[in-house]
Amino acid sequence: MPEFRPGSVWLVGAGPGDPGLLTLLAQHALTLADAVVHDALVDRRVLALARPGALLIHAGKRGGKPSPRQPDIARRLIRLAHEGRRVLRLKGGDPLIFGRGGEEALALVAAGVPFRIVPGITAALGAAAYAGIPLTHRRLAQTVTFVTGHTAGGADVDTIDWAAVARGSHVVVGYMALKHLASVTARLIAHGRNPDEPVAVIAEATTERQRVVETTLAGAAADAAGLEPPALVVVGEVARLRAGLDWLGALDGRVLDADPLRLALTRDTG
Amino acid sequence: MPEFRPGSVWLVGAGPGDPGLLTLLAQHALTLADAVVHDALVDRRVLALARPGALLIHAGKRGGKPSPRQPDIARRLIRLAHEGRRVLRLKGGDPLIFGRGGEEALALVAAGVPFRIVPGITAALGAAAYAGIPLTHRRLAQTVTFVTGHTAGGADVDTIDWAAVARGSHVVVGYMALKHLASVTARLIAHGRNPDEPVAVIAEATTERQRVVETTLAGAAADAAGLEPPALVVVGEVARLRAGLDWLGALDGRVLDADPLRLALTRDTG
Repeated sequence: MPEFRPGSVWLVGAGPGDPGLLTLLAQHALTLADAVVHDALVDRRVLALARPGALLIHAGKRGGKPSPRQPDIARRLIRLAHEGRRVLRLKGGDPLIFGRGGEEALALVAAGVPFRIVPGITAALGAAAYAGIPLTHRRLAQTVTFVTGHTAGGADVDTIDWAAVARGSHVVVGYMALKHLASVTARLIAHGRNPDEPVAVIAEATTERQRVVETTLAGAAADAAGLEPPALVVVGEVARLRAGLDWLGALDGRVLDADPLRLALTRDTG
Repeated sequence: MPEFRPGSVWLVGAGPGDPGLLTLLAQHALTLADAVVHDALVDRRVLALARPGALLIHAGKRGGKPSPRQPDIARRLIRLAHEGRRVLRLKGGDPLIFGRGGEEALALVAAGVPFRIVPGITAALGAAAYAGIPLTHRRLAQTVTFVTGHTAGGADVDTIDWAAVARGSHVVVGYMALKHLASVTARLIAHGRNPDEPVAVIAEATTERQRVVETTLAGAAADAAGLEPPALVVVGEVARLRAGLDWLGALDGRVLDADPLRLALTRDTG
């Protein structure tokens, strides 16, 4: 394991929720850090792994209060490092996928603070594994696109070319897409995706509170109305495979369909 | 930690190489498994964590020999489970991103073998973190697409709509793209991407042998000619950020540019 030097910052992904999805490096950092600056999305059981006496600093939205401004978080990391602490910046998921980890790291560079980046299991991978939905499949999906839903919201300029995403991405995974689910699904349908295409909406993926709604592009907004963020939306034929691969449901008695696509399982390709 | 029952199979992602990127669940599974069926891409130091006496079974290409056929691997997993063993199917990266984990799991379902899926750090996340390239960025990239390069190879039908990918995906990450790098980059340029767009080609990401070539779409095929697989290709303006975020290079004396985009670092957006 690499040395965690006083005065440095480790930007670390904590994964999607299940503490078992922490990496060994993240666990190592938790046992050594003097200060842990974490998001609201980081699970309590993960924070419980911090060494006794470590400063735990919350830097995310909670209870309706506005989140600290990004420059404030960066300044805090810099100050803690300049005080000679081992600073662990712990972010939900992966720090470089919709996590602003790059911006925080550049602020550290500008301040001359040494740092390291440790990837984490991003929500899409956690949700896929725990919901039983392969994000790629030789016959169904050779491209998977992660998009953020919040640009589809109206007020902001939408920087996403939804027509191209609809055409080019066999699987579309929407992060932060619950709020704008109606507009995201409408855009995909307007640009040619089948309204009956399978969709899974997965809330609180990998935690004991995980909920999965199995629906379609046309039905998603209504069917997922009862879910709360954080949630992830998976659009694509691969979502059908959950009928065969919902191993968590099988633990509770769901009968899995060994041939959810009515296709041969593993025709040889070498 | 969940119980690892005899007669069951855990499909587990081993991450991209660095053993520190194993998850706690993967480590747990390694200490308990009676049989570990692993790919060639799984690092030796990861396999060294298997419990003494565990059966280690190689199921991937090595030394030019053809890899076992997919149905043979599935049959082997089923036989080991039916013999009452705790079977760990350990795959490089994540089992559901270009890993055929879904196919293997469906074969288990057909045979009535209980299973669990544990996600891993996929190569794109590992390479991004260790090369210092955020895969998303609020101003530069709201969509990132993972594609497999091997459909661009000529003989097979290309199921990827490269025009749509070129237009819709701010960042394109090519898996298994080294062999067909010339044709992948040519397609992206033909469909409107700037030949000068930054590209990073990252071989053996996160290992001590990691090599990163910083190049452009037009230059990639020639500049990466010396690299060996496994390699990952990252296309997008975000690749420019490596000039500021190459923390591994900084450990060896590279001077980082705090403003690689000549933009303010973290302008407030709340």
